Amino acid sequence: MRSITLTAIEGIPMVNAGDDLVRLLADGIDRSELRPQDRDILVVCQKIISKAEGRVVNLGDIEPSEFAKNLAKRWEKDPRAVELVLRQTSRIVRNDRGVIIVETGPGWVCANAGVDESNSLSDDRAILLPVDPDASAARIRAGLMKRYGADMAVLVTDTFGRPWRDGLTEICLGIAGMNPILDLRGTTDLGGRELHHTVVAVADELAAAAGLLMEKAAGVPAVLVRGYTYQPFDGSAKVLIRPAEADLFR
Amino acid sequence: MRSITLTAIEGIPMVNAGDDLVRLLADGIDRSELRPQDRDILVVCQKIISKAEGRVVNLGDIEPSEFAKNLAKRWEKDPRAVELVLRQTSRIVRNDRGVIIVETGPGWVCANAGVDESNSLSDDRAILLPVDPDASAARIRAGLMKRYGADMAVLVTDTFGRPWRDGLTEICLGIAGMNPILDLRGTTDLGGRELHHTVVAVADELAAAAGLLMEKAAGVPAVLVRGYTYQPFDGSAKVLIRPAEADLFR
Repeated sequence: MRSITLTAIEGIPMVNAGDDLVRLLADGIDRSELRPQDRDILVVCQKIISKAEGRVVNLGDIEPSEFAKNLAKRWEKDPRAVELVLRQTSRIVRNDRGVIIVETGPGWVCANAGVDESNSLSDDRAILLPVDPDASAARIRAGLMKRYGADMAVLVTDTFGRPWRDGLTEICLGIAGMNPILDLRGTTDLGGRELHHTVVAVADELAAAAGLLMEKAAGVPAVLVRGYTYQPFDGSAKVLIRPAEADLFR
Repeated sequence: MRSITLTAIEGIPMVNAGDDLVRLLADGIDRSELRPQDRDILVVCQKIISKAEGRVVNLGDIEPSEFAKNLAKRWEKDPRAVELVLRQTSRIVRNDRGVIIVETGPGWVCANAGVDESNSLSDDRAILLPVDPDASAARIRAGLMKRYGADMAVLVTDTFGRPWRDGLTEICLGIAGMNPILDLRGTTDLGGRELHHTVVAVADELAAAAGLLMEKAAGVPAVLVRGYTYQPFDGSAKVLIRPAEADLFR
């Protein structure tokens, strides 16, 4: 009987810049009475990582550009928040009806460059994405492996919208220790026919699964996944980015 | 300790038109030694539903239109397969580089109108989506509730690509018994700030979670989810369709 268990890591306090995130996460894991083991996956939402890494910006410190002021006026937004979005942006994919969909420096396409004004410490602060979510994942992974002696993987996630379908889902932004993609090309289906197009974004499926336990206000910033057999991997979550030249919607 | 368990329902034989799907699924559940209980969710991939409902088409029976022939020639495809896609299509969203992204009659936006040429019975057959995935879900739910006396929910899923991100993920196409959306608007975040934009597509997150166990060739067409507290709901999975007028990418 193949099964996967997702467990909410609860009781993690408000995180501040410089906090030892590995210790906070491990304390949460210990409270859950799970004993991490080889092949476990810890899924961590980017927000507590960004906070620990000091990626919190006081909007009062932001001087908006003329362009940011123009956009803000047109769409009735805070020009300082728009400026913050533009500073994380390398390309505007779509800008209409108050929505700004952008390509961030690393290539992720999302609304508002992932800048988050909810769940921050006060109304005048906003949280940026981690500078390098793969590196964040790798640091957490190294810390957990040292503490538990188990060969684990770590995912860093955020909550994104998507075209065509309503509602947000949790997606993968950074990874350490596992392949975010399961490539089934060259294998055969049940009828013996070769599967030509089947590349599964398993890291996004894991993120979404964890998202079920990460409902915003519930104080669950991490989820331990047990039972999913991943492929070991040294690379980046950026393999999940569809190259612009292969993307019909950029 | 909040946790969710996903269990693969294995050993379900090749499904044919007219098969009693509830019985096949229930036999699989029984083999897994799970005893279904209130609040369980059964996630079922559309393919076995389409087969049971006779949505398998012999391409030899399809007479392609002139437009289908034109498209097929331009992109080196089988004109009969293109014709089959067009017959499920109410709008072509994008047609470039051999990809046809369409809006289906019910409003789902996806590649090839969900027509599937893999995992069918032979090379000359293709599988269409169920006519009404909500109704399919409702029939399975009613059958399972009768057999087990448990108040369950049922999701019907398919494997879709998406813009911007590589790889496929499992998404929800039909639902019975639960709300596919978790609407957190009006609730407050950890800092006491109201969440304005947080509508979570939990049915897609559940589908993706189940997708982790549904790898194409492994013969897992269904997954039982236990431990997710859903909201009872009588409506359709179509609430997951972003209305065209609110969609910047249609």
